[in-house]
Amino acid sequence: MPTLDDKHWFTEVEDVAGSAFSLLIRRKLHEERSDYQTIEVYETEHFGNLMVIDGFTMLSSRENFLYHEMLAHPVLLTHPAPKRVCIIGGGDCGTLREVLKHDSVEQAMQIDIDERVTRIAEQFFPELTASNDDPRAELLFSDGIQWMADAEPGSLDVIIVDSTDPVGPAQGLFTADFYTDCRRALADDGLLVQQSESPLFHLDIITSMHQDLRSAGFGAVRTLFFPQAIYPSGWWSATMAATGEAIPDFRRIDAGAALDTTYYNADIHAAALAQPQFVRRHLAAQD
Amino acid sequence: MPTLDDKHWFTEVEDVAGSAFSLLIRRKLHEERSDYQTIEVYETEHFGNLMVIDGFTMLSSRENFLYHEMLAHPVLLTHPAPKRVCIIGGGDCGTLREVLKHDSVEQAMQIDIDERVTRIAEQFFPELTASNDDPRAELLFSDGIQWMADAEPGSLDVIIVDSTDPVGPAQGLFTADFYTDCRRALADDGLLVQQSESPLFHLDIITSMHQDLRSAGFGAVRTLFFPQAIYPSGWWSATMAATGEAIPDFRRIDAGAALDTTYYNADIHAAALAQPQFVRRHLAAQD
Repeated sequence: MPTLDDKHWFTEVEDVAGSAFSLLIRRKLHEERSDYQTIEVYETEHFGNLMVIDGFTMLSSRENFLYHEMLAHPVLLTHPAPKRVCIIGGGDCGTLREVLKHDSVEQAMQIDIDERVTRIAEQFFPELTASNDDPRAELLFSDGIQWMADAEPGSLDVIIVDSTDPVGPAQGLFTADFYTDCRRALADDGLLVQQSESPLFHLDIITSMHQDLRSAGFGAVRTLFFPQAIYPSGWWSATMAATGEAIPDFRRIDAGAALDTTYYNADIHAAALAQPQFVRRHLAAQD
Repeated sequence: MPTLDDKHWFTEVEDVAGSAFSLLIRRKLHEERSDYQTIEVYETEHFGNLMVIDGFTMLSSRENFLYHEMLAHPVLLTHPAPKRVCIIGGGDCGTLREVLKHDSVEQAMQIDIDERVTRIAEQFFPELTASNDDPRAELLFSDGIQWMADAEPGSLDVIIVDSTDPVGPAQGLFTADFYTDCRRALADDGLLVQQSESPLFHLDIITSMHQDLRSAGFGAVRTLFFPQAIYPSGWWSATMAATGEAIPDFRRIDAGAALDTTYYNADIHAAALAQPQFVRRHLAAQD
């Protein structure tokens, strides 16, 4: 049975599930301790570059398209006319790049607490930051929780919470207080989406998020599912919430057809909204 | 960075992708060399029991429902009246169990070359073999390739190829010759489904399978996608082929609603048929 040494392999252990995922690496390209976290970059054998924060895999060149497309496109094509978009977190700029593919968007703000993530992405993942000079893009480096508390009521159409796991600096982004501020900052027809971990390993996080979003005044909540090879279980989710009473499946399906994507298309959008039977049962039991 | 020792972890390395997946184990429950392969069973910390064949993870108690449900239910609910079903491989009996949930099925034959897989499943995965005394079930232990070559023309409604990877004893199940025999054994409206590896890592296998199935006389071919945590990339596929000129999405959606499942439901069935953009492009380029 193979033993994986730490010279040739980067390994992330998921304690809750007793599982681990490893990638064969050629070398470590970078490591630093920023004001908020430890950021590492590896050159892998078959996944391109890999960014790791506090020991957790964040993204690889090879398959970040799955996560970034699924965080940006479903919510933006569900909103009837998203003009003002705010990304909380997302310092690698991959989500921002997807957001800027939408012609309706007039302003795309990215608020990440750690500027170093963006600077490192510029160096090691230049394809993700290539749209950063778009005049609609605005990169702010500050505390997203405080920023949202200060945001003008009704000033945003879509909020995308592209955070790390609910430990460390991102913990405050998984709370009803934060969602209440988001709800207030959203205009009519406003939508929020947030990465919500693995359906197989973290169903409790998805459940709490549903409860917290509803208690913060969101009228409808719906979880999307998609594959993500480098995250625990290889299966990930994002949870969408509407200021209104329902989340329509699509409102601008025609706009979606024009997007240049690798995973997303209209069929995949609809597919991501399908609720596995065990999730359906679990969420129904909480209502 | 964690180093995974082989005392506490079972690790499967995927050479093509330079990735590895590991599960925390309590102990090895069983190991034997059968006439065909090496079979191991581990007790894991959080995934229940784990069956490993020739070093590759086959199934865990915790999440085999994904694979078995997605191999059985979509194809059986697409066929208008599946009465005679044949499973090639599938020695753990998990697919057979799902097949037997369908009232329309009158005969469910499982042809696995290695009887030891079934005997070990009886001992360590009794929940999978619990339906084996159903009078409709017939367990044969012989070479599925030869069996299919000898099968009476038009004698089967649905063929499910539930095999290991296309190396070793299963290699012959991924060939146009085998598909030609399957095509001949199927009646009108007949359908075949076969596990077809990871869309992220093995798109070439999916592509060859499409070509081989068409060259064997199948009129329509369609790949289904679903998560599978313990398989490489955590994302898996099965490819369905029809003797007719099209694969309708469902024909017996009402029958599906009555099934007792953990992952599958009608929404998930439709979702699994959605083709990711890169798969769509890749397959279109081959046509």
